[in-house]
Amino acid sequence: MLSDDLISQIEFLKEVEKLKTIRRTNRTLDNGRHENAAEHSWHVALMAITLSSYADSVIDIFRVSKMLLIHDIVEIDAGDTWLYSEKRESAHQAEAIAAARLFGLLPTALGAEFRALWQEFESRETPEAKFAASIDGIQPLLNHLITRQEMDPLIGVDQVMQKKEFIKQFAPKLWMLAESLIDESVEKGIYSVG
Amino acid sequence: MLSDDLISQIEFLKEVEKLKTIRRTNRTLDNGRHENAAEHSWHVALMAITLSSYADSVIDIFRVSKMLLIHDIVEIDAGDTWLYSEKRESAHQAEAIAAARLFGLLPTALGAEFRALWQEFESRETPEAKFAASIDGIQPLLNHLITRQEMDPLIGVDQVMQKKEFIKQFAPKLWMLAESLIDESVEKGIYSVG
Repeated sequence: MLSDDLISQIEFLKEVEKLKTIRRTNRTLDNGRHENAAEHSWHVALMAITLSSYADSVIDIFRVSKMLLIHDIVEIDAGDTWLYSEKRESAHQAEAIAAARLFGLLPTALGAEFRALWQEFESRETPEAKFAASIDGIQPLLNHLITRQEMDPLIGVDQVMQKKEFIKQFAPKLWMLAESLIDESVEKGIYSVG
Repeated sequence: MLSDDLISQIEFLKEVEKLKTIRRTNRTLDNGRHENAAEHSWHVALMAITLSSYADSVIDIFRVSKMLLIHDIVEIDAGDTWLYSEKRESAHQAEAIAAARLFGLLPTALGAEFRALWQEFESRETPEAKFAASIDGIQPLLNHLITRQEMDPLIGVDQVMQKKEFIKQFAPKLWMLAESLIDESVEKGIYSVG
Protein backbone atom coordinates (compact mmCIF):
# COMPACT_ATOMS: atom_id res chain seq x y z
CA MET A 1 0.00 0.00 0.00
CA LEU A 2 1.29 3.43 -0.94
CA SER A 3 0.83 6.17 1.67
CA ASP A 4 -1.75 8.91 1.11
CA ASP A 5 1.09 11.43 0.84
CA LEU A 6 2.86 9.44 -1.86
CA ILE A 7 -0.40 8.98 -3.78
CA SER A 8 -0.93 12.77 -3.69
CA GLN A 9 2.62 13.44 -4.82
CA ILE A 10 2.25 11.06 -7.76
CA GLU A 11 -1.08 12.63 -8.67
CA PHE A 12 0.69 16.00 -8.86
CA LEU A 13 3.63 14.60 -10.85
CA LYS A 14 1.20 13.01 -13.32
CA GLU A 15 -0.77 16.24 -13.66
CA VAL A 16 2.32 18.32 -14.44
CA GLU A 17 3.02 16.08 -17.46
CA LYS A 18 0.57 18.51 -19.11
CA LEU A 19 3.10 21.37 -18.89
CA LYS A 20 4.80 19.73 -21.90
CA THR A 21 1.70 20.63 -23.93
CA ILE A 22 1.57 24.31 -22.97
CA ARG A 23 2.65 26.20 -26.05
CA ARG A 24 4.68 29.38 -25.75
CA THR A 25 4.94 32.02 -28.46
CA ASN A 26 8.68 31.35 -28.86
CA ARG A 27 10.10 28.65 -31.11
CA THR A 28 12.72 25.90 -30.91
CA LEU A 29 15.39 24.63 -33.30
CA ASP A 30 13.14 21.61 -33.87
CA ASN A 31 11.77 22.64 -37.28
CA GLY A 32 10.31 25.80 -35.81
CA ARG A 33 8.13 23.93 -33.31
CA HIS A 34 6.69 26.17 -30.56
CA GLU A 35 8.61 25.99 -27.30
CA ASN A 36 6.60 24.48 -24.46
CA ALA A 37 6.53 25.65 -20.85
CA ALA A 38 8.24 22.49 -19.52
CA GLU A 39 11.37 22.76 -21.66
CA HIS A 40 11.43 26.53 -21.04
CA SER A 41 11.37 25.80 -17.28
CA TRP A 42 14.33 23.43 -17.68
CA HIS A 43 16.26 26.08 -19.60
CA VAL A 44 15.74 28.83 -17.01
CA ALA A 45 16.56 26.53 -14.07
CA LEU A 46 19.84 25.59 -15.75
CA MET A 47 20.52 29.24 -16.66
CA ALA A 48 20.07 30.31 -13.04
CA ILE A 49 22.61 27.75 -11.84
CA THR A 50 25.06 28.59 -14.63
CA LEU A 51 24.80 32.35 -14.01
CA SER A 52 24.43 32.31 -10.20
CA SER A 53 27.69 34.21 -9.66
CA TYR A 54 26.08 37.30 -11.24
CA ALA A 55 23.42 37.68 -8.56
CA ASP A 56 23.62 41.05 -6.84
CA SER A 57 23.58 39.72 -3.28
CA VAL A 58 24.14 36.38 -1.58
CA ILE A 59 21.14 34.31 -2.62
CA ASP A 60 19.87 30.79 -2.04
CA ILE A 61 20.31 29.49 -5.58
CA PHE A 62 18.47 26.26 -4.79
CA ARG A 63 15.38 28.30 -3.92
CA VAL A 64 15.78 30.20 -7.21
CA SER A 65 16.07 26.91 -9.06
CA LYS A 66 12.95 25.45 -7.40
CA MET A 67 11.03 28.66 -8.12
CA LEU A 68 11.93 28.42 -11.79
CA LEU A 69 11.04 24.72 -12.00
CA ILE A 70 7.52 25.47 -10.73
CA HIS A 71 6.94 29.05 -11.93
CA ASP A 72 4.92 28.10 -15.02
CA ILE A 73 2.93 25.14 -13.65
CA VAL A 74 -0.10 27.43 -13.25
CA GLU A 75 -0.19 27.65 -17.05
CA ILE A 76 -1.58 24.10 -17.15
CA ASP A 77 -4.92 25.66 -16.20
CA ALA A 78 -4.38 29.31 -17.14
CA GLY A 79 -2.43 28.91 -20.40
CA ASP A 80 0.59 30.92 -21.48
CA THR A 81 0.08 34.61 -22.14
CA TRP A 82 2.75 36.23 -24.27
CA LEU A 83 4.68 38.97 -22.47
CA TYR A 84 3.81 41.45 -25.20
CA SER A 85 0.10 40.60 -25.18
CA GLU A 86 -2.46 43.05 -23.77
CA LYS A 87 -4.04 40.15 -21.90
CA ARG A 88 -1.02 39.78 -19.60
CA GLU A 89 -2.56 41.79 -16.74
CA SER A 90 -5.81 39.87 -16.61
CA ALA A 91 -4.00 36.53 -16.56
CA HIS A 92 -3.00 36.94 -12.91
CA GLN A 93 -6.37 36.01 -11.43
CA ALA A 94 -6.65 32.83 -13.50
CA GLU A 95 -3.12 31.92 -12.43
CA ALA A 96 -3.92 32.33 -8.73
CA ILE A 97 -6.90 29.97 -9.08
CA ALA A 98 -4.67 27.52 -10.96
CA ALA A 99 -2.05 27.66 -8.21
CA ALA A 100 -4.67 26.76 -5.61
CA ARG A 101 -5.86 23.74 -7.60
CA LEU A 102 -2.52 22.41 -8.83
CA PHE A 103 -0.38 22.84 -5.72
CA GLY A 104 -3.47 21.73 -3.76
CA LEU A 105 -3.00 18.24 -5.22
CA LEU A 106 0.09 17.83 -3.00
CA PRO A 107 0.24 16.92 0.71
CA THR A 108 -0.56 20.08 2.72
CA ALA A 109 2.94 21.14 3.81
CA LEU A 110 4.59 20.53 0.43
CA GLY A 111 1.72 22.16 -1.44
CA ALA A 112 1.97 25.23 0.80
CA GLU A 113 5.74 25.38 0.21
CA PHE A 114 5.35 25.26 -3.59
CA ARG A 115 2.49 27.75 -3.56
CA ALA A 116 4.52 30.16 -1.41
CA LEU A 117 7.48 29.77 -3.80
CA TRP A 118 5.22 30.55 -6.75
CA GLN A 119 3.77 33.58 -4.97
CA GLU A 120 7.27 34.74 -4.04
CA PHE A 121 8.28 34.53 -7.70
CA GLU A 122 5.20 36.46 -8.80
CA SER A 123 5.72 39.22 -6.20
CA ARG A 124 9.35 39.85 -7.22
CA GLU A 125 10.30 41.23 -3.84
CA THR A 126 12.94 38.91 -2.40
CA PRO A 127 16.50 38.75 -3.80
CA GLU A 128 15.81 35.19 -5.00
CA ALA A 129 12.62 36.19 -6.83
CA LYS A 130 14.36 39.18 -8.41
CA PHE A 131 17.17 37.00 -9.72
CA ALA A 132 14.72 34.33 -10.93
CA ALA A 133 12.61 36.96 -12.73
CA SER A 134 15.73 38.36 -14.40
CA ILE A 135 16.76 34.93 -15.67
CA ASP A 136 13.19 34.33 -16.87
CA GLY A 137 13.41 37.68 -18.67
CA ILE A 138 16.72 36.89 -20.35
CA GLN A 139 15.93 33.37 -21.61
CA PRO A 140 13.56 34.59 -24.37
CA LEU A 141 16.21 37.10 -25.55
CA LEU A 142 18.62 34.20 -25.95
CA ASN A 143 15.94 32.04 -27.54
CA HIS A 144 14.97 34.70 -30.10
CA LEU A 145 18.59 35.02 -31.16
CA ILE A 146 19.10 31.28 -31.56
CA THR A 147 15.86 30.41 -33.29
CA ARG A 148 15.69 33.69 -35.25
CA GLN A 149 11.97 33.41 -35.47
CA GLU A 150 10.12 35.66 -37.81
CA MET A 151 7.90 37.56 -35.41
CA ASP A 152 4.46 38.56 -36.50
CA PRO A 153 4.10 41.36 -35.67
CA LEU A 154 7.80 42.13 -35.34
CA ILE A 155 8.42 43.51 -31.84
CA GLY A 156 9.93 46.96 -31.62
CA VAL A 157 13.15 47.30 -29.67
CA ASP A 158 11.53 50.04 -27.52
CA GLN A 159 8.89 47.57 -26.42
CA VAL A 160 11.53 44.97 -25.59
CA MET A 161 13.58 47.51 -23.60
CA GLN A 162 10.50 48.58 -21.67
CA LYS A 163 9.58 44.98 -20.73
CA LYS A 164 13.14 44.04 -19.79
CA GLU A 165 14.40 47.16 -18.03
CA PHE A 166 13.51 45.72 -14.60
CA ILE A 167 16.63 43.58 -15.01
CA LYS A 168 18.73 46.74 -14.61
CA GLN A 169 17.52 47.03 -11.01
CA PHE A 170 17.05 43.34 -10.19
CA ALA A 171 20.31 41.92 -11.54
CA PRO A 172 22.58 44.80 -12.61
CA LYS A 173 25.41 42.40 -13.45
CA LEU A 174 23.18 40.73 -16.04
CA TRP A 175 21.83 43.96 -17.52
CA MET A 176 24.83 44.40 -19.78
CA LEU A 177 24.19 40.88 -21.06
CA ALA A 178 20.52 41.67 -21.74
CA GLU A 179 21.49 44.84 -23.61
CA SER A 180 24.07 42.97 -25.65
CA LEU A 181 21.54 40.28 -26.65
CA ILE A 182 18.99 42.95 -27.58
CA ASP A 183 21.57 44.84 -29.68
CA GLU A 184 22.50 41.64 -31.49
CA SER A 185 18.83 40.95 -32.27
CA VAL A 186 18.37 44.47 -33.61
CA GLU A 187 21.39 43.99 -35.90
CA LYS A 188 19.88 40.74 -37.18
CA GLY A 189 16.48 42.34 -37.80
CA ILE A 190 14.74 40.26 -35.12
CA TYR A 191 13.53 43.42 -33.32
CA SER A 192 12.54 46.52 -35.26
CA VAL A 193 13.84 50.04 -34.68
CA GLY A 194 11.78 53.23 -34.74
CA MET B 1 32.15 44.60 -22.85
CA LEU B 2 31.06 41.24 -21.51
CA SER B 3 33.69 39.27 -19.59
CA ASP B 4 35.24 36.17 -21.17
CA ASP B 5 33.57 34.04 -18.51
CA LEU B 6 30.12 35.44 -19.27
CA ILE B 7 30.65 34.96 -23.01
CA SER B 8 31.55 31.29 -22.36
CA GLN B 9 28.53 30.79 -20.15
CA ILE B 10 26.21 32.26 -22.79
CA GLU B 11 27.83 30.08 -25.45
CA PHE B 12 27.00 27.03 -23.32
CA LEU B 13 23.44 28.22 -22.62
CA LYS B 14 22.88 28.79 -26.34
CA GLU B 15 24.28 25.35 -27.21
CA VAL B 16 21.99 23.55 -24.76
CA GLU B 17 18.96 24.98 -26.59
CA LYS B 18 19.56 21.90 -28.79
CA LEU B 19 18.49 19.56 -25.99
CA LYS B 20 14.90 20.54 -26.89
CA THR B 21 15.43 18.77 -30.22
CA ILE B 22 16.73 15.47 -28.77
CA ARG B 23 13.92 12.99 -29.27
CA ARG B 24 13.27 10.28 -26.69
CA THR B 25 11.37 7.07 -27.40
CA ASN B 26 8.60 8.09 -24.97
CA ARG B 27 5.65 10.26 -25.91
CA THR B 28 3.80 13.27 -24.54
CA LEU B 29 0.13 14.19 -24.25
CA ASP B 30 0.74 16.66 -27.08
CA ASN B 31 -0.88 14.61 -29.89
CA GLY B 32 1.57 11.78 -29.29
CA ARG B 33 4.64 13.95 -29.97
CA HIS B 34 7.91 12.35 -28.85
CA GLU B 35 9.16 13.62 -25.51
CA ASN B 36 12.42 15.54 -25.78
CA ALA B 37 15.36 15.38 -23.40
CA ALA B 38 14.89 18.96 -22.13
CA GLU B 39 11.31 18.53 -20.93
CA HIS B 40 12.23 15.10 -19.52
CA SER B 41 15.04 16.79 -17.55
CA TRP B 42 12.57 19.31 -16.15
CA HIS B 43 10.20 16.53 -15.11
CA VAL B 44 12.87 14.52 -13.25
CA ALA B 45 14.30 17.61 -11.50
CA LEU B 46 10.80 18.47 -10.24
CA MET B 47 10.14 14.83 -9.29
CA ALA B 48 13.33 14.70 -7.22
CA ILE B 49 12.31 17.79 -5.26
CA THR B 50 8.74 16.57 -4.80
CA LEU B 51 9.85 13.11 -3.63
CA SER B 52 12.99 14.10 -1.69
CA SER B 53 11.59 12.84 1.62
CA TYR B 54 11.78 9.25 0.29
CA ALA B 55 15.56 9.27 -0.06
CA ASP B 56 17.17 6.54 2.00
CA SER B 57 19.75 8.76 3.71
CA VAL B 58 20.27 12.47 4.24
CA ILE B 59 21.13 13.78 0.80
CA ASP B 60 21.92 17.13 -0.77
CA ILE B 61 18.77 17.49 -2.85
CA PHE B 62 20.13 20.56 -4.66
CA ARG B 63 23.01 18.44 -5.95
CA VAL B 64 20.48 15.81 -7.08
CA SER B 65 18.48 18.50 -8.82
CA LYS B 66 21.54 19.95 -10.61
CA MET B 67 22.60 16.45 -11.65
CA LEU B 68 19.20 15.82 -13.20
CA LEU B 69 19.14 19.19 -14.97
CA ILE B 70 22.43 18.36 -16.72
CA HIS B 71 22.34 14.54 -16.92
CA ASP B 72 21.15 14.37 -20.54
CA ILE B 73 23.07 17.31 -22.02
CA VAL B 74 25.59 14.85 -23.51
CA GLU B 75 22.77 13.61 -25.77
CA ILE B 76 23.13 16.82 -27.81
CA ASP B 77 26.17 15.16 -29.39
CA ALA B 78 25.57 11.48 -28.58
CA GLY B 79 21.80 11.24 -29.13
CA ASP B 80 19.32 9.43 -26.91
CA THR B 81 19.61 5.65 -26.70
CA TRP B 82 16.50 3.87 -25.49
CA LEU B 83 16.99 1.97 -22.23
CA TYR B 84 15.77 -1.23 -23.89
CA SER B 85 18.03 -0.87 -26.93
CA GLU B 86 21.05 -3.15 -27.38
CA LYS B 87 23.10 -0.08 -28.27
CA ARG B 88 22.88 1.27 -24.69
CA GLU B 89 26.31 -0.11 -23.66
CA SER B 90 28.24 1.34 -26.58
CA ALA B 91 26.70 4.78 -26.05
CA HIS B 92 28.90 5.47 -23.01
CA GLN B 93 32.05 6.32 -24.96
CA ALA B 94 30.24 8.78 -27.22
CA GLU B 95 28.70 10.38 -24.14
CA ALA B 96 32.08 10.87 -22.47
CA ILE B 97 33.40 12.65 -25.57
CA ALA B 98 30.25 14.78 -25.62
CA ALA B 99 30.70 15.71 -21.96
CA ALA B 100 34.23 16.93 -22.67
CA ARG B 101 33.08 19.13 -25.54
CA LEU B 102 29.85 20.51 -24.06
CA PHE B 103 30.95 21.20 -20.48
CA GLY B 104 34.23 22.38 -21.99
CA LEU B 105 32.38 25.39 -23.40
CA LEU B 106 32.08 26.76 -19.85
CA PRO B 107 34.69 28.64 -17.79
CA THR B 108 37.13 26.05 -16.39
CA ALA B 109 35.89 25.76 -12.80
CA LEU B 110 32.20 25.66 -13.67
CA GLY B 111 32.80 23.25 -16.54
CA ALA B 112 34.73 20.93 -14.21
CA GLU B 113 31.91 21.10 -11.65
CA PHE B 114 29.24 20.17 -14.21
CA ARG B 115 31.39 17.43 -15.73
CA ALA B 116 32.05 15.95 -12.27
CA LEU B 117 28.30 16.06 -11.52
CA TRP B 118 27.58 14.26 -14.78
CA GLN B 119 30.26 11.64 -14.03
CA GLU B 120 28.88 11.23 -10.51
CA PHE B 121 25.41 10.59 -11.95
CA GLU B 122 26.77 8.05 -14.44
CA SER B 123 28.77 6.18 -11.78
CA ARG B 124 25.76 5.74 -9.47
CA GLU B 125 27.94 5.45 -6.37
CA THR B 126 27.06 8.40 -4.12
CA PRO B 127 23.72 8.62 -2.26
CA GLU B 128 22.79 11.62 -4.44
CA ALA B 129 23.55 9.77 -7.68
CA LYS B 130 21.60 6.71 -6.50
CA PHE B 131 18.55 8.81 -5.72
CA ALA B 132 18.84 10.73 -8.99
CA ALA B 133 19.14 7.48 -10.97
CA SER B 134 16.05 6.09 -9.20
CA ILE B 135 14.01 9.17 -10.08
CA ASP B 136 15.28 8.98 -13.67
CA GLY B 137 14.19 5.32 -13.68
CA ILE B 138 10.70 6.06 -12.35
CA GLN B 139 9.80 8.98 -14.63
CA PRO B 140 9.35 6.79 -17.74
CA LEU B 141 7.08 4.43 -15.75
CA LEU B 142 4.88 7.39 -14.91
CA ASN B 143 5.10 8.69 -18.46
CA HIS B 144 4.09 5.35 -20.03
CA LEU B 145 1.02 5.23 -17.80
CA ILE B 146 -0.07 8.77 -18.63
CA THR B 147 0.56 8.74 -22.36
CA ARG B 148 -0.42 5.04 -22.77
CA GLN B 149 1.74 4.79 -25.81
CA GLU B 150 1.42 1.79 -28.03
CA MET B 151 4.91 0.35 -27.80
CA ASP B 152 6.39 -1.32 -30.80
CA PRO B 153 7.61 -3.83 -29.85
CA LEU B 154 5.61 -4.02 -26.63
CA ILE B 155 8.05 -4.34 -23.72
CA GLY B 156 7.70 -7.40 -21.54
CA VAL B 157 7.18 -6.81 -17.83
CA ASP B 158 10.20 -9.05 -17.08
CA GLN B 159 12.40 -6.74 -19.11
CA VAL B 160 11.02 -3.70 -17.27
CA MET B 161 11.56 -5.33 -13.87
CA GLN B 162 15.14 -6.25 -14.80
CA LYS B 163 15.97 -2.68 -15.90
CA LYS B 164 14.30 -1.09 -12.86
CA GLU B 165 15.25 -3.44 -10.04
CA PHE B 166 18.25 -1.28 -9.08
CA ILE B 167 15.69 1.06 -7.51
CA LYS B 168 15.06 -1.59 -4.82
CA GLN B 169 18.62 -1.07 -3.55
CA PHE B 170 19.07 2.61 -4.41
CA ALA B 171 15.79 4.02 -3.08
CA PRO B 172 13.91 1.28 -1.22
CA LYS B 173 11.16 3.71 -0.18
CA LEU B 174 10.40 4.35 -3.85
CA TRP B 175 10.53 0.70 -4.91
CA MET B 176 6.94 0.06 -3.85
CA LEU B 177 5.94 3.01 -6.01
CA ALA B 178 7.85 1.60 -9.00
CA GLU B 179 6.20 -1.80 -8.54
CA SER B 180 2.79 -0.22 -8.26
CA LEU B 181 3.28 1.78 -11.49
CA ILE B 182 4.53 -1.35 -13.29
CA ASP B 183 1.52 -3.38 -12.06
CA GLU B 184 -0.85 -0.68 -13.27
CA SER B 185 0.78 -0.68 -16.70
CA VAL B 186 0.51 -4.48 -16.92
CA GLU B 187 -3.21 -4.22 -16.10
CA LYS B 188 -3.63 -1.65 -18.86
CA GLY B 189 -1.75 -3.78 -21.39
CA ILE B 190 1.12 -1.30 -21.70
CA TYR B 191 3.67 -3.99 -20.72
CA SER B 192 3.19 -7.61 -21.82
CA VAL B 193 3.28 -10.64 -19.53
CA GLY B 194 5.00 -13.96 -20.33
